[in-house]
Amino acid sequence: MIRVTVWNEFYHETVNEEVRKIYPEGIHGAIKAFLSEEEDFTVRAVTMSDPEFGLSEEILNSTDVLIWWAHVKHGEVPDAVAARVKERVLKGMGFIGLHSAHLCKPFTMLMGTSCGLRWRDNDRERIWNVNPSHPIAKGIGDYFELDHEEMYGEYFDIPVPEDIIFLGWFKGGEVFRSGCTFRRGYGKIFYFQPGHEEHPTYYNPNVQKIIKNAVRWTAPVNTRAAIDSPWAESPEKLLAEK
Amino acid sequence: MIRVTVWNEFYHETVNEEVRKIYPEGIHGAIKAFLSEEEDFTVRAVTMSDPEFGLSEEILNSTDVLIWWAHVKHGEVPDAVAARVKERVLKGMGFIGLHSAHLCKPFTMLMGTSCGLRWRDNDRERIWNVNPSHPIAKGIGDYFELDHEEMYGEYFDIPVPEDIIFLGWFKGGEVFRSGCTFRRGYGKIFYFQPGHEEHPTYYNPNVQKIIKNAVRWTAPVNTRAAIDSPWAESPEKLLAEK
Amino acid sequence: MIRVTVWNEFYHETVNEEVRKIYPEGIHGAIKAFLSEEEDFTVRAVTMSDPEFGLSEEILNSTDVLIWWAHVKHGEVPDAVAARVKERVLKGMGFIGLHSAHLCKPFTMLMGTSCGLRWRDNDRERIWNVNPSHPIAKGIGDYFELDHEEMYGEYFDIPVPEDIIFLGWFKGGEVFRSGCTFRRGYGKIFYFQPGHEEHPTYYNPNVQKIIKNAVRWTAPVNTRAAIDSPWAESPEKLLAEK
Amino acid sequence: MIRVTVWNEFYHETVNEEVRKIYPEGIHGAIKAFLSEEEDFTVRAVTMSDPEFGLSEEILNSTDVLIWWAHVKHGEVPDAVAARVKERVLKGMGFIGLHSAHLCKPFTMLMGTSCGLRWRDNDRERIWNVNPSHPIAKGIGDYFELDHEEMYGEYFDIPVPEDIIFLGWFKGGEVFRSGCTFRRGYGKIFYFQPGHEEHPTYYNPNVQKIIKNAVRWTAPVNTRAAIDSPWAESPEKLLAEK
Repeated sequence: MIRVTVWNEFYHETVNEEVRKIYPEGIHGAIKAFLSEEEDFTVRAVTMSDPEFGLSEEILNSTDVLIWWAHVKHGEVPDAVAARVKERVLKGMGFIGLHSAHLCKPFTMLMGTSCGLRWRDNDRERIWNVNPSHPIAKGIGDYFELDHEEMYGEYFDIPVPEDIIFLGWFKGGEVFRSGCTFRRGYGKIFYFQPGHEEHPTYYNPNVQKIIKNAVRWTAPVNTRAAIDSPWAESPEKLLAEK
Repeated sequence: MIRVTVWNEFYHETVNEEVRKIYPEGIHGAIKAFLSEEEDFTVRAVTMSDPEFGLSEEILNSTDVLIWWAHVKHGEVPDAVAARVKERVLKGMGFIGLHSAHLCKPFTMLMGTSCGLRWRDNDRERIWNVNPSHPIAKGIGDYFELDHEEMYGEYFDIPVPEDIIFLGWFKGGEVFRSGCTFRRGYGKIFYFQPGHEEHPTYYNPNVQKIIKNAVRWTAPVNTRAAIDSPWAESPEKLLAEK
Repeated sequence: MIRVTVWNEFYHETVNEEVRKIYPEGIHGAIKAFLSEEEDFTVRAVTMSDPEFGLSEEILNSTDVLIWWAHVKHGEVPDAVAARVKERVLKGMGFIGLHSAHLCKPFTMLMGTSCGLRWRDNDRERIWNVNPSHPIAKGIGDYFELDHEEMYGEYFDIPVPEDIIFLGWFKGGEVFRSGCTFRRGYGKIFYFQPGHEEHPTYYNPNVQKIIKNAVRWTAPVNTRAAIDSPWAESPEKLLAEK
Repeated sequence: MIRVTVWNEFYHETVNEEVRKIYPEGIHGAIKAFLSEEEDFTVRAVTMSDPEFGLSEEILNSTDVLIWWAHVKHGEVPDAVAARVKERVLKGMGFIGLHSAHLCKPFTMLMGTSCGLRWRDNDRERIWNVNPSHPIAKGIGDYFELDHEEMYGEYFDIPVPEDIIFLGWFKGGEVFRSGCTFRRGYGKIFYFQPGHEEHPTYYNPNVQKIIKNAVRWTAPVNTRAAIDSPWAESPEKLLAEK
């Protein structure tokens, strides 16, 4: 069984009626629902309002793959919590960053770049599969479309991805490396661009299939209990301990 | 002209007579000396004892390529200074990490991993060129030897390098990805393993040639004045400003 | 000096009045003209009608970078000539494949794939720079446009490129890995998609800058006189010799 | 079920008593035996003496992963048969090249390089795991040893691998990229260096585990029935048809 934890900042759904209509159980609820269809997954959902921001040692230590959705609350996750997530990834936990998670602290700490990008509301996207032999592309055809999606465009300030699986085409004239993989330590990372809260993206069958594939791909292959470096848990933590 | 700044923690040379004999002007002095032979380089050397740890905005803003040597003083470089170096790399500055710089704060922040490794004193190394078409390998033959070098061995906890140029073979039974490149933002990074302070490694003609090649390769291609992300200067700084 | 040879099948310009108006000296002539502006290049142009298809041992042995333009005559280049080009690349010669050169024999032999793609006439392209630290992107902004260009779209059946520098966006809904690098042996390869014969693409300043950058990037770093393998010159040749 | 075909030139075992003692059922027999332990594999073994060199359309079309062992008979496999294997890989079949398969025709055609290397008989090898998050490294520790193995050393003339999973250290002073992955079209490729016929390498539990892992990793994710390119089946075949 792959133990999946879906983390959501859970903000828009509580303050915006339109968003609540689309995701009445929260975005985490919608993601949990379709992932729970799979027999090899055990799925739990947590939010920023839970104790320790939903990211206690206990929760992380019993998570094989962490899925992260966030948009405007990145700054409220304490550094120590973000460093804990990063450390767990280095030990083997998979990490799937969805949509605006490109700016969440664990992702930017793992990437080492600003992760900035170009953006604009309300565009039409066509997502091209440029890596058909990759397990995350299993069952995905040449391309699929999202009639409404927020435009995220290049230059996307990420390290050169190890694999680019999907390229996004936007009607307004932009392209984007929409599905990318990275590895850090023993952990595997997938970033997937679609999923603006104002659109029903997470009900799209291709999007669901891709996230399911990504759970299996990011699930740990080998793990380690400790990291042999004074800096393993981030320079910040080390400094704080002095 | 490529403006090179050589940064050294400058510690062993001040407390260890053996090291001082090898590097009477400091390791930074030795590196500055051979780099100064090149007509297209302007070279300056700074140390941790200089104002602002030798890494003021003024110095960084007039640096195209920063070379970093450090071993035991990593923790004394403040986070804010390390974040400044990282930001400058994201804007285009080249960064060359030598030997134990694998654990310096700017490098680990840029990598997103622990950068831990296996090590042992006093071994013999043979360095193999596995990437003869890479500019950093220009003029380097199939392999060269270092009779005395500290062993650094796998598993080296770095992200998958974009290019592996040199592989180290150690008599005691280890291998190492001894020369690796990475890119972060507009900046290029080269890590090069040889250079223990107790051995005259930086007088080796192949080592000198490689570092010269690396200066030219990491020199900025394009630069940017600003980074379009709230996190650009590291989550830590942002948090601190709140 | 970098010795550049521009190779052109030189067919459309001889039979199509519209194409001849755009490229009165042939596409090879236009490319030679702008490359000749550079002081560090020596440029010569050859065509398929020249002795030995313009690719004699003598010509190849005095070429540092070979630029290849072809569209419909791929099959007329004999295997032995294509194998000679491939062998020279493995020894260090740079190779720049322009537009329909994706299907030329030397390129497909070097790639090991079909190099097939999706295509359609007459579209508008916007070319995005997704790799600003790469030497081939030097001086190229976030993007530039070609008002008229043939659409080449994904899935492009190439090996995963070592670097993707440019992504093409087409008005009709496609994306393309428009500027890609590969290495084979001691040789470096750049494929660049724009350049349909019916459009004045090779007069575009960004296109010219990119090809100039690519010449410098693909120029040999190290070379070798021989290749240590019975198969070096292609299985076909070996078989023929039996 | 993953349908595995083990192909062996089956020569040394028939003429060399020492080799026959180690592999009384042939190397293909030994590989088939341990792969058959896995419940998700269906395994068949073929040799060069079988009709159509053991590589008929029927056999290839019912193969998900082809494992290739060969040493001295590469030249006897006709080009047309090698092109058929290559085409099947481009359509999705996995390919595992063992030991001297680095010089077999399908592999060199897929790589586009000479695949030459340095070699010497009778050395001791230590194989380091430098990619612990890769599925092919599942269950493999930091390193393992082979007391007797043929030395294969750098420079190995392959394209830059997409992933390097294992690095070989040889007592005599060489290193080697011993476990590498590549993709061509819809197919995935793994090259694994150990396996000289005079040593009992294929009885080593780590070697067996790695080959089992590689079968699962190279098994097709998506497949295609046709390849959209005139060159799909190799330039040679096309020419021959003219």
